[in-house]
Amino acid sequence: MIDFEIPADLAAERDRVRRFVIERIVPFERDPRLTQHGPTDELRQELVELARAEQLLTVQAPVELGGRGLTHAEQAVLYEAAGWSTLGPVAMNCAAPDEGNMYLLSKIANPEQVQRFLAPVIAGHQRSVFAMTEPDGAGSDPAQLATEATFDGENFTINGRKWLITGANGAKTWIIMARLAPNPHLPEGPTLFLTEGGTPGIVIERTMNTMDRNYVAGHGVVRFENLTLPKAALLGEAGQALRYAQLRLAPARLTHCMRWLGAAERAQSIAIAHAKTRTAFGKPIGEHQGVSFLLADNEIALHQCRLTIWHACWLMDRGEKARHESSIAKAYVSEELFKVADRCVQVLGGIGISDETVVEMIFRDMRAFRLYDGPTEVHKYAIGRKILR
Amino acid sequence: MIDFEIPADLAAERDRVRRFVIERIVPFERDPRLTQHGPTDELRQELVELARAEQLLTVQAPVELGGRGLTHAEQAVLYEAAGWSTLGPVAMNCAAPDEGNMYLLSKIANPEQVQRFLAPVIAGHQRSVFAMTEPDGAGSDPAQLATEATFDGENFTINGRKWLITGANGAKTWIIMARLAPNPHLPEGPTLFLTEGGTPGIVIERTMNTMDRNYVAGHGVVRFENLTLPKAALLGEAGQALRYAQLRLAPARLTHCMRWLGAAERAQSIAIAHAKTRTAFGKPIGEHQGVSFLLADNEIALHQCRLTIWHACWLMDRGEKARHESSIAKAYVSEELFKVADRCVQVLGGIGISDETVVEMIFRDMRAFRLYDGPTEVHKYAIGRKILR
Amino acid sequence: MIDFEIPADLAAERDRVRRFVIERIVPFERDPRLTQHGPTDELRQELVELARAEQLLTVQAPVELGGRGLTHAEQAVLYEAAGWSTLGPVAMNCAAPDEGNMYLLSKIANPEQVQRFLAPVIAGHQRSVFAMTEPDGAGSDPAQLATEATFDGENFTINGRKWLITGANGAKTWIIMARLAPNPHLPEGPTLFLTEGGTPGIVIERTMNTMDRNYVAGHGVVRFENLTLPKAALLGEAGQALRYAQLRLAPARLTHCMRWLGAAERAQSIAIAHAKTRTAFGKPIGEHQGVSFLLADNEIALHQCRLTIWHACWLMDRGEKARHESSIAKAYVSEELFKVADRCVQVLGGIGISDETVVEMIFRDMRAFRLYDGPTEVHKYAIGRKILR
Amino acid sequence: MIDFEIPADLAAERDRVRRFVIERIVPFERDPRLTQHGPTDELRQELVELARAEQLLTVQAPVELGGRGLTHAEQAVLYEAAGWSTLGPVAMNCAAPDEGNMYLLSKIANPEQVQRFLAPVIAGHQRSVFAMTEPDGAGSDPAQLATEATFDGENFTINGRKWLITGANGAKTWIIMARLAPNPHLPEGPTLFLTEGGTPGIVIERTMNTMDRNYVAGHGVVRFENLTLPKAALLGEAGQALRYAQLRLAPARLTHCMRWLGAAERAQSIAIAHAKTRTAFGKPIGEHQGVSFLLADNEIALHQCRLTIWHACWLMDRGEKARHESSIAKAYVSEELFKVADRCVQVLGGIGISDETVVEMIFRDMRAFRLYDGPTEVHKYAIGRKILR
Repeated sequence: MIDFEIPADLAAERDRVRRFVIERIVPFERDPRLTQHGPTDELRQELVELARAEQLLTVQAPVELGGRGLTHAEQAVLYEAAGWSTLGPVAMNCAAPDEGNMYLLSKIANPEQVQRFLAPVIAGHQRSVFAMTEPDGAGSDPAQLATEATFDGENFTINGRKWLITGANGAKTWIIMARLAPNPHLPEGPTLFLTEGGTPGIVIERTMNTMDRNYVAGHGVVRFENLTLPKAALLGEAGQALRYAQLRLAPARLTHCMRWLGAAERAQSIAIAHAKTRTAFGKPIGEHQGVSFLLADNEIALHQCRLTIWHACWLMDRGEKARHESSIAKAYVSEELFKVADRCVQVLGGIGISDETVVEMIFRDMRAFRLYDGPTEVHKYAIGRKILR
Repeated sequence: MIDFEIPADLAAERDRVRRFVIERIVPFERDPRLTQHGPTDELRQELVELARAEQLLTVQAPVELGGRGLTHAEQAVLYEAAGWSTLGPVAMNCAAPDEGNMYLLSKIANPEQVQRFLAPVIAGHQRSVFAMTEPDGAGSDPAQLATEATFDGENFTINGRKWLITGANGAKTWIIMARLAPNPHLPEGPTLFLTEGGTPGIVIERTMNTMDRNYVAGHGVVRFENLTLPKAALLGEAGQALRYAQLRLAPARLTHCMRWLGAAERAQSIAIAHAKTRTAFGKPIGEHQGVSFLLADNEIALHQCRLTIWHACWLMDRGEKARHESSIAKAYVSEELFKVADRCVQVLGGIGISDETVVEMIFRDMRAFRLYDGPTEVHKYAIGRKILR
Repeated sequence: MIDFEIPADLAAERDRVRRFVIERIVPFERDPRLTQHGPTDELRQELVELARAEQLLTVQAPVELGGRGLTHAEQAVLYEAAGWSTLGPVAMNCAAPDEGNMYLLSKIANPEQVQRFLAPVIAGHQRSVFAMTEPDGAGSDPAQLATEATFDGENFTINGRKWLITGANGAKTWIIMARLAPNPHLPEGPTLFLTEGGTPGIVIERTMNTMDRNYVAGHGVVRFENLTLPKAALLGEAGQALRYAQLRLAPARLTHCMRWLGAAERAQSIAIAHAKTRTAFGKPIGEHQGVSFLLADNEIALHQCRLTIWHACWLMDRGEKARHESSIAKAYVSEELFKVADRCVQVLGGIGISDETVVEMIFRDMRAFRLYDGPTEVHKYAIGRKILR
Repeated sequence: MIDFEIPADLAAERDRVRRFVIERIVPFERDPRLTQHGPTDELRQELVELARAEQLLTVQAPVELGGRGLTHAEQAVLYEAAGWSTLGPVAMNCAAPDEGNMYLLSKIANPEQVQRFLAPVIAGHQRSVFAMTEPDGAGSDPAQLATEATFDGENFTINGRKWLITGANGAKTWIIMARLAPNPHLPEGPTLFLTEGGTPGIVIERTMNTMDRNYVAGHGVVRFENLTLPKAALLGEAGQALRYAQLRLAPARLTHCMRWLGAAERAQSIAIAHAKTRTAFGKPIGEHQGVSFLLADNEIALHQCRLTIWHACWLMDRGEKARHESSIAKAYVSEELFKVADRCVQVLGGIGISDETVVEMIFRDMRAFRLYDGPTEVHKYAIGRKILR
């Protein structure tokens, strides 16, 4: 039955999240610990404790691991509210990459790994990374994975170089993708490994200077130099990394969409407030259609983004993979929300390109959103292939 | 509870409609009685009888008037299927303007009027018109209504000129909007009247040559020359025409969206089939991203259009007016479906601009869709005003 | 030296053309002989005689063939003026496909062919066709040419099927592209032939129903059934047809751009006049930015189109092939002028989709323009390949 | 005579500029003195000396003031070359705001003012500011100017607040716009004043954090606190500031376009190089039309931007004000070059949002470009008004 009703208890929780973010988290947007490389770990920890105090920490986690086991649709509602500040999801421990990493680990980690690598992340005590992307291309096309793990029957030795590794600096739980070299013991191919930050052989070369600034510790360049891991470091089965990455990807894409939808609404609210008060040529600028049409376009886009997210969530909650629909959602939402942010900048005029409001930061983060988790073109390629099959 | 499931019985009925349209109606698309001024009345009657035979005629009508009393959401599902051919809704008697007129009459006509003016339309025996738009502007801005009715206590005498009056030529049930001149008996202002086609004083000057061709009898230019109507010709209350027009407009807009969504899907299916078989530069053109991205954009747009229609329907089914949401839907859907049709033309190349396929006709009809029931700019104006209030 | 000055004598001639078109040609736009399949031959002949009387017929032809030998840049200025009415270029004998055919024949026909096939076209006494495009694809990708000519040492026998052959019905000068089958006498491959309309073996199956309506006699479907031509029917050298087609294409593309620029200006002038007089919500609609921004966008686009046309002409006048720049111009101009026409339709509202003004016709013709002489995607493909080489 | 030829000597100088920028200036793009608030004064001075050594400093200045008195068209050619690095115009002393300020002062300053305030700027020894924009709106709508100067017959006392004052921090030559209060000595209204940086009463509150970073010393917030200036501080005539601002604006807008055109070409060259070498799905990404079409769109846009700049320059070189054409150019070029930069970011993928290349910086600067010197909407408003007059 076609239904868009948000149940009363979920609506109440959404309102609580919204209030929490507005009252407790937004003030930290001016905190100097929100750096060009994203929030520092210290700031993150402070925010996490605020959420913990409100029972708003990692609410999406499986019930058996201490969370509420939210459905995708429930996440959609709450993450949108959390996204009002880009620090909201950080506080509530539902930001990337931890959110997706927790999801993946809850699906494929063994009990020992859950205990050691997942539980502390869920508890908000440590952060995680997903080390996949490489400088020479293993982003959209995983066939190009160059980092290699050799296995001698007992230990893996990993060598290679990664970049755009979000949150690398300071993370404790490391998920590493490497190509398992042919060996007599295990299937070869792309494989996931799990280890601790600080393990000798993990060299964090630097943090990249990027346009976006909402990820804790920014994006790192990492080198694996004879990183030696025991057999128990295998995450899931050998040779299955691409399947696992896909498993992580569809929901992770959607949670990005949810959070950014909230951020775009924030930008829109700031632009609307400005359009009502700033005057030009004798009246509030919002009374010029040159401005009000921009805001109307935003209103339409925000509405459409919410609907497509909800639809893909509903599919996944029914147990479908929804790869096609999550591709549609990612391509659509990232392109549209960028336009929303761009129009908000335009409405704000000179203010829009300055940090007088958070719109400037949202605009920059939104630009990056069109690239990560599959650039728009890769999604269109996939969508086209599916419908032309 | 967020839910996009189509109940099994509705899905079955949708499939039945789809089959009916494909098997019985599509062949008539080559019938010469589908003229540049739309289907003739003769063709219409033939199609109506086909639908009647399948119990698919006027299914949306209230139960007490012989229909199934479909909800808006149910209409969304069935009209989309009907729209696969632009003749589908004509056959099933859910095309504009009859569909909207029946809706309005079922809401505000008195029992006598229902019997005389509505019942035969529901039965598929005669057509109706809604004579509102005027050459000098009373389309988007009803304040400019120039047609005037004077009332002498007994009769109304109406004078004025209308155009773009869809289906005027041959319609039997006439709803006429005129400004009631100040008089001692009734409130003045925009007022609706109900009369029969052929009443002396209704002069059909000509049928306009327009780009679109899916409306029975096309769009007429009409003159009222001392059209004299009795007091009983009043439809609803005097002075309330704009309120009634709004009452009609929100759902009527949405049913346009539903039908055109079906037509756009048809165009997309033709473009996809072409892209899979036509080759250029050594492979099917669908394997060139220059083509497949167009089709992927269409896929995204069609999905989004469906969701926004469903959402507005859901609101109306809950008893809300949904003026804001139906404005969003109309603006979004008409603009996007036009782009879909345009991209299908482009994919088809030279074929696309010829009547070798129905895509050319759909493209032209879609262009008109961006203008009627409020041009996109008027909706953006309304949306902007609402959010800036 | 960067200079955009139009010399005084050229400017005067442009003004004369503009006046001629407005005063003498525009009235024929309501002539019933301007059919859905374009102007009839009878109408064409009447218009041609008007231009002849004003010494405005085929002014672009080489001096030795009775014309003025206009440079490309001079053509740009005069054709833009002629294009104010889509019948203007028909009258002045600088419309497609004759204009391009005359250009090609003046470059590669031998004296005998010039006398027999070109001179009467230049004189405005007969029309020509360029029979290249085929139903199964030999439009953008000439490698797919299926029409075949076999040569027995004396005669060619041609078999095949063509469509979208502009002006086929009634044309006297036929340029036919066919693939010369391997033979001991001549190089094989795509080859041009020249013959008269009415030669046995040329079967005009029908005229297609297309969206556009500015080409005399519309677009035909043609079959060659053992069309037998003597050796003298060879146009240029055997196997060189693609080179010749290219020779014709770059300038032919540009003259399309010139003529349509004029038509788009006409549409804009009609939209502006409407926006100044039609009122809505209390003021002329042109005072709503929702309308005036559309017209401003048009103004920008028209300006840009003119500049890019002029630039490509200047290159060709220097003896360069300008394939890259004419691709840029064709892709840009066709896309932008379509948008101009589309926005004019939108500004006109309901009038825009009717033939109350010529904007509706221009809109439809402009849609086709994005497809012929290379769809936009083929040009982008070529541009991309060039810059990535 | 329509001509796009760049004279040989100008072409040679352009090539020399290009080489100079590539070889001598580009390496400084990694200099830490290129801060988030733009190049420091120290870096600027170092670059200026490099240009001086090559006789490339302030070449646009009037001959009598030591420059070459370049025409606007010559500036277009050389600034485009200089813009290859955003530091190029800084080195050559043709960057904003100095370039526009020098232009204005050369037109309206008296000899004494030229000597004291203009000559050192032309010589590259000091910088200038144009203090017009105010927090509450006096940007696009100068009617809102709030900063006020009172005149007692001898001295002006200025009070008010300005922001987005480019280069404020460290500038020596200050042009200040203030509203002259009614007084018995001089006409009232917006008036320009000229004074030195550091004059008591000029309080630089802070430098704003903005998205762009190519302006020396960034954008400042400035307060005038009883800033007292002698009568000789009057720049031009009292009450004429808006006219002077317009005088400055049309050419200043265009030089922005020229410089950013060069920067966009740089971005495009980086994206092309990436598309040729980075592989995905088995081939260089530039062989996917999803990428090559983006680059083709850029190629088209860059071409169009150059042409429209040249045209407006040509008009101004003929002595026309070209307000309409410079508005068209500014609106078109800023919107299009932003899209160019955006597409380059997209082609570069993850690299695109990092400072691994200068594309990220160019993208951000290009965003700001759509707002300063009149946001696009204000230009469209002006264009619309002109054509609807």
